[in-house]
Amino acid sequence: MKELQDRIKKDGIVISEDILKVDSFVNHQVDPTLMQHVGAEFAEHFKDRGITKIATIESSGIPPALMTAQAMELPLIILKKQPSAVLNDHLYQTEVTSFTKETSYELTLSSKFISEKDHVLIIDDFLANGEAATGAIRLIRKAHATVAGIGVLIEKSFQPGHEKLTSQGFDVYALARIGHMEKDKITFID
Amino acid sequence: MKELQDRIKKDGIVISEDILKVDSFVNHQVDPTLMQHVGAEFAEHFKDRGITKIATIESSGIPPALMTAQAMELPLIILKKQPSAVLNDHLYQTEVTSFTKETSYELTLSSKFISEKDHVLIIDDFLANGEAATGAIRLIRKAHATVAGIGVLIEKSFQPGHEKLTSQGFDVYALARIGHMEKDKITFID
Repeated sequence: MKELQDRIKKDGIVISEDILKVDSFVNHQVDPTLMQHVGAEFAEHFKDRGITKIATIESSGIPPALMTAQAMELPLIILKKQPSAVLNDHLYQTEVTSFTKETSYELTLSSKFISEKDHVLIIDDFLANGEAATGAIRLIRKAHATVAGIGVLIEKSFQPGHEKLTSQGFDVYALARIGHMEKDKITFID
Repeated sequence: MKELQDRIKKDGIVISEDILKVDSFVNHQVDPTLMQHVGAEFAEHFKDRGITKIATIESSGIPPALMTAQAMELPLIILKKQPSAVLNDHLYQTEVTSFTKETSYELTLSSKFISEKDHVLIIDDFLANGEAATGAIRLIRKAHATVAGIGVLIEKSFQPGHEKLTSQGFDVYALARIGHMEKDKITFID
């Protein structure tokens, strides 16, 4: 998606060869018009697939996921990050460990909002090692629902997340695929 | 806003006389069409006030705040909840204690995304004791910016938040004001 790639080139800040800050338009300050275009792009790519719900992981994925849900006229479910596991029949939970942040959390979804009939599209801001997406997939499968695909704004293609997910047969659609980055230079893969 | 009040009556669950769950359309599962209508309503109420940015507190406030930002064609800033204070010249922080949840966090905003020229509209899902809104106001004032108003989806009018904010002269616009609630019965204030 050219609009997103141009914006990353203009406003993204390369902190190191594997850390990119997009906090002026994606994470901390959000550009709603860009998010609307992102939502429309995901809706177009994933149309006609029988999708019933959009899912995202709180909280940076919420803006693009909400706009995708709006464009597809589908409910959005927000997978919550809880600090610890809770014994509760009405909750699905799975532990996710973030190696980059050296933290772990229990990804949590109420059983009220998902069923085996659901075909879920996962939307998130970044795909790097694929830990969060893999956790979301595990959680959706615990509910015996199916995963329709994964849409991300920015994929760091030099990290293993993309390969990990596509090798399992998932359709991963990234709007900006970064092949390499260094200070003042970001190279996208077409 | 009749649409929101009708939805609360239909899908809200009164847990006790001061706890209302709206997790099937606001917090956990989100109805994007309702959020779009909510955003349009806030945009109409707060138009012509010279607002420059929308602010919300992560993460339940993000959906209505994003839709308000989209309707007003303004950037959204997400005030982050950090577990502890950080010494950093580029961050504004203020401690918020939630009495209901018995937790506290550091509400955090990068100085890059706010200046003394900003006139900020705060959007959140609930107004109860006003702790989060008061924290957001403190943070905006630390940046020498001004607060244009506070928009919330649901106000529990029997709790002190509304009075606390309006007595300081703030325009508080709540789309559903709950005067009293008990099992299967929610009474709104006009």
